[in-house]
Amino acid sequence: MTIRAAELIQAKRDGKELDAAQLTELILAYARGEVPDYQLAAFCMAVYFQGLSSAETFALTDAMVRSGASIALGEALGRKVVDKHSTGGVGDKTTLAVGPIVAACGVPFGKMSGRGLGHTGGTLDKLEAIPGFRVELTLDEFVAQLRETGLAIIGQTADLVPADKLLYGLRDVTATVDNVSLIAASIMSKKIAAGADAIVLDVKVGDGAFMKSLADARVLAETMISLGRRAGREVVAVLTDMEQPLGRAVGNALEVREAAATVRGEGPDDFTELVLDSCAHLLALSDLEITEEEGRRRAEAAVADGSAFDAYERWVRAQGGDPDLAALPKAPLIREVFAQRGGYVQELAALPVGLAAVHLGGGRRAKDDAIDHSVGVVCLKKRGDAVGDGEPLAEIHARDETSAEQAAADVLAAYRLGDEEPRARPIVLDTLA
Amino acid sequence: MTIRAAELIQAKRDGKELDAAQLTELILAYARGEVPDYQLAAFCMAVYFQGLSSAETFALTDAMVRSGASIALGEALGRKVVDKHSTGGVGDKTTLAVGPIVAACGVPFGKMSGRGLGHTGGTLDKLEAIPGFRVELTLDEFVAQLRETGLAIIGQTADLVPADKLLYGLRDVTATVDNVSLIAASIMSKKIAAGADAIVLDVKVGDGAFMKSLADARVLAETMISLGRRAGREVVAVLTDMEQPLGRAVGNALEVREAAATVRGEGPDDFTELVLDSCAHLLALSDLEITEEEGRRRAEAAVADGSAFDAYERWVRAQGGDPDLAALPKAPLIREVFAQRGGYVQELAALPVGLAAVHLGGGRRAKDDAIDHSVGVVCLKKRGDAVGDGEPLAEIHARDETSAEQAAADVLAAYRLGDEEPRARPIVLDTLA
Repeated sequence: MTIRAAELIQAKRDGKELDAAQLTELILAYARGEVPDYQLAAFCMAVYFQGLSSAETFALTDAMVRSGASIALGEALGRKVVDKHSTGGVGDKTTLAVGPIVAACGVPFGKMSGRGLGHTGGTLDKLEAIPGFRVELTLDEFVAQLRETGLAIIGQTADLVPADKLLYGLRDVTATVDNVSLIAASIMSKKIAAGADAIVLDVKVGDGAFMKSLADARVLAETMISLGRRAGREVVAVLTDMEQPLGRAVGNALEVREAAATVRGEGPDDFTELVLDSCAHLLALSDLEITEEEGRRRAEAAVADGSAFDAYERWVRAQGGDPDLAALPKAPLIREVFAQRGGYVQELAALPVGLAAVHLGGGRRAKDDAIDHSVGVVCLKKRGDAVGDGEPLAEIHARDETSAEQAAADVLAAYRLGDEEPRARPIVLDTLA
Repeated sequence: MTIRAAELIQAKRDGKELDAAQLTELILAYARGEVPDYQLAAFCMAVYFQGLSSAETFALTDAMVRSGASIALGEALGRKVVDKHSTGGVGDKTTLAVGPIVAACGVPFGKMSGRGLGHTGGTLDKLEAIPGFRVELTLDEFVAQLRETGLAIIGQTADLVPADKLLYGLRDVTATVDNVSLIAASIMSKKIAAGADAIVLDVKVGDGAFMKSLADARVLAETMISLGRRAGREVVAVLTDMEQPLGRAVGNALEVREAAATVRGEGPDDFTELVLDSCAHLLALSDLEITEEEGRRRAEAAVADGSAFDAYERWVRAQGGDPDLAALPKAPLIREVFAQRGGYVQELAALPVGLAAVHLGGGRRAKDDAIDHSVGVVCLKKRGDAVGDGEPLAEIHARDETSAEQAAADVLAAYRLGDEEPRARPIVLDTLA
C-alpha cells in the first residue's frame, strides 16, 4: 500500500479529485495500520491546500464510519432517536439541558460526547462533575438506558470510528486541523456511527469558537448538513453566537448547576433561548410529527410543569449519578471581580474567560491533564448589562489565592465597558434547515 | 518539541518565513529522532505549497550539514580540492571520465557519490561493475587516497548528513520530492559536508532528467550556486541536455567502458564535449590559477598524451579494482535493434532507454534490488544521425531472450525517424558562473 498511498497524496497535491474507492482504501488501510502516519500527515496537508470536493468529503466520512462499528438507534428502539452536536465553545452546557427537556416531551435523546481540550469544555467532563456519574457505558447499556429512560449521554466507545480518533490526533500535531472538509468529516462520521436518526448541529461563531466568522460557520454547517443527508439522516443546523461565553457559568460543576437551573426555568436568558430553540428543532424532527412552534411550546411546558427536571433526575440516577445539586463539588475560594468604572458591558470576550477556567484547573492544556471539577468563572454581567463602578462583574471559583488572582486579572481584561448601551445581538444568528 | 514543531508547520503552512534558529531546531531534533516523521511530512508538504525563501533554504541546508560529520578536504590536503555533481540522467558516466583527466592535470578530485534509483543510474553502481572496486572507504582512507592518487570517488559515509538521508526517504513516499528548495538543500548539504572547495554542478534538462524545462533547471542551478557560495564554496553550474541519453552506453559495465574510451580520446562526441567542458571549469576553479580556455587545453592534452588514462588506471587500482577493460562483466546475449525505415534520427527519448536498462536488470525499481552490471543498451545512432532502412539503431545487452525482446521493443519505440535532418542541439545549453 505504501506506493499507492504516495500516488494518492501526489494526486491530491496536484489538485486532482480522488474517487470513493481510493479514499476508502486509504482510510481503511490507515485504520488497519498499513499506511503510516507520515503519509496521512502529508495527505492532510495537501487537503489543507487543495481542499476536498463534496463527493470526496462524503467518501472520506463514509470510510471513517466504516473503519469501525456503528449502531442504528432507530432500529434498536423502534423509535426515531434524536441527537445534537455543538462545535464547541465557552460555557456550552446545552446538551445537559436539552436532553432532559426533549426526553420529558417523550422523544428519545441518545448522544455520544467528547472531552474538552484547550478553552472549549467537553460534555463528558461536565457530567463527571456529578458524583458517581458513569460516562463509560457499553453499547448495550447505552441502548437499554435509552429504551428505559429515554435519555443517555455517554463517551464515544472505542470501537466507533477508530480512523477519526487516529486522524484527529495526527491533525492536531501537524497543523492540519483547520480544513472544513476534514472538520465536517470528523464530526459527522461520529454522529453517523453513533446512530441517531435526526441531528441538530450547533455551529458556534466568534472568538471563543473554532469558526471566527459567520461565513466560515455557514460553510461548515452546509457541509455537515450535506454529509448527514447523504447518510440518510435528517439534519438542521443553527449558527449561534460565541463572541461571549454562553450563559453565565464556565467550569464543570458550575455549568451542571446552571444547566439544571435552566431545566427548571431559572436559567440565564441567552442560554435558555438557545436550549428552547434547539429543543424545538429536535421535537420537530422527531416522530411526534409536530411543527417547530408546537415543539417550542411543549419544551416550554415541560420546563414549566417540572417534568423536564424530573427527567433530568431520572437520567442522572440511571447513569449512577447523584442528582442532588448540593452534592456537586464546590471550590474552597470564591473571589469577586469588580468593575473599574461604571457603564455598559460592550464586550465580554469568550476566549480569555475559557482560558481562565483552564488555568484555574478546570480544563486541559494537554490530553492527559487531570481536571478540578469545582473551579471556574461565573460571569455575573454580560454584554449589554449595566454596571455600577465597583460592582461585581464576575466570580472566580478557585483552589487557591494565586490561581484566583491570575484568573481575576484575566477575566477583568476580558470585559470592555463603555458609556453607550451596545446593540443587542441574538444568540441564534441563523438557522439552516 | 512536538508542540513547537506543530507551530513551525503552521507558520510555514500560513506562508510565514521561519528564522534560522527555528529551522535548525526542527531539523536537528528530527535527526535526533525527537520530532516524528509525520510532522516532517506535513512540514515538507507545507513547503511544497508555500516554498522556502533563500534565507530559509540556506538555514535548512546548514542544519542538514550540522546534523552529522563533515570534512574540510582543502585543509586536510593543503590543496584546493574540486568536485562535480550531476542531478542525474540516462547514460551519465561523466564523473568516471572527468575525475582521471582532472587528476592527470594535477588537481585533486574528491567525490562522494550515490546509487541509482529508477531510470537514472548511480556512479557507485557503475564503479562496482569494475571487478574488485571498493566504494566503501573510511573518511581517513578517502583523504589518504586523495593525497596519494589525486583522485578518490566513494559512497557517502553514514555519518555525513544523516538528516538528508532521513528526509529524502520520507519525501520519496509522501509526494514531497518536487520542490526546488528541498532538492537544492539535499544536494548541496551533501556537497558541503563532503568537503570540496570548488564544485561544478551539472543540471540535466529534458525528458530523462528530473528538471523537464530549461527554466526550472535554471532556478535549481541558481539556488544551488547561492547555497554553495553562502557556505564558502566556489561553484559553477552547467545546464546540459538530457532529451537523449548521454553518449551511447546506458548500463553499468557498458558505461565504464565508454568512460574509459573517452579518457583515451575515443568517446562519442556529445559526451566528450561535456567531459572536456566540465574539466575546463574544474581546472579554472582549482589552485592552478588558469583560465577555462587553458583548462580546456590541458584537459585535451592529458587525454591526447595518455596521462589521463594512466590516472584512470592508478585510481581504479588504488580502490582495489582491475583497470583492464577486458575484465568488465559482459552480458551473455547481444541483440540489435533495426530501423524500420531510413532517414534521420529526429529524437531518441532518454527516459524509455533508461527504463529499458532498468528492466534488463541494470537498475533498481526498489531500494534494495540487486543489479546486473553487465546488461544495458548501446545507442549506435543518436539524434541527427542518418540511418538506412534496416540498419542497426542500438544494441541490447541482456541476460536472456525474453528481457532482450522487451528492451528491443522499448528502445525501438524511443527512436523517432524522419526525412529531415533535425537542427543540431548542443550538449551544454548554458553555463552559470
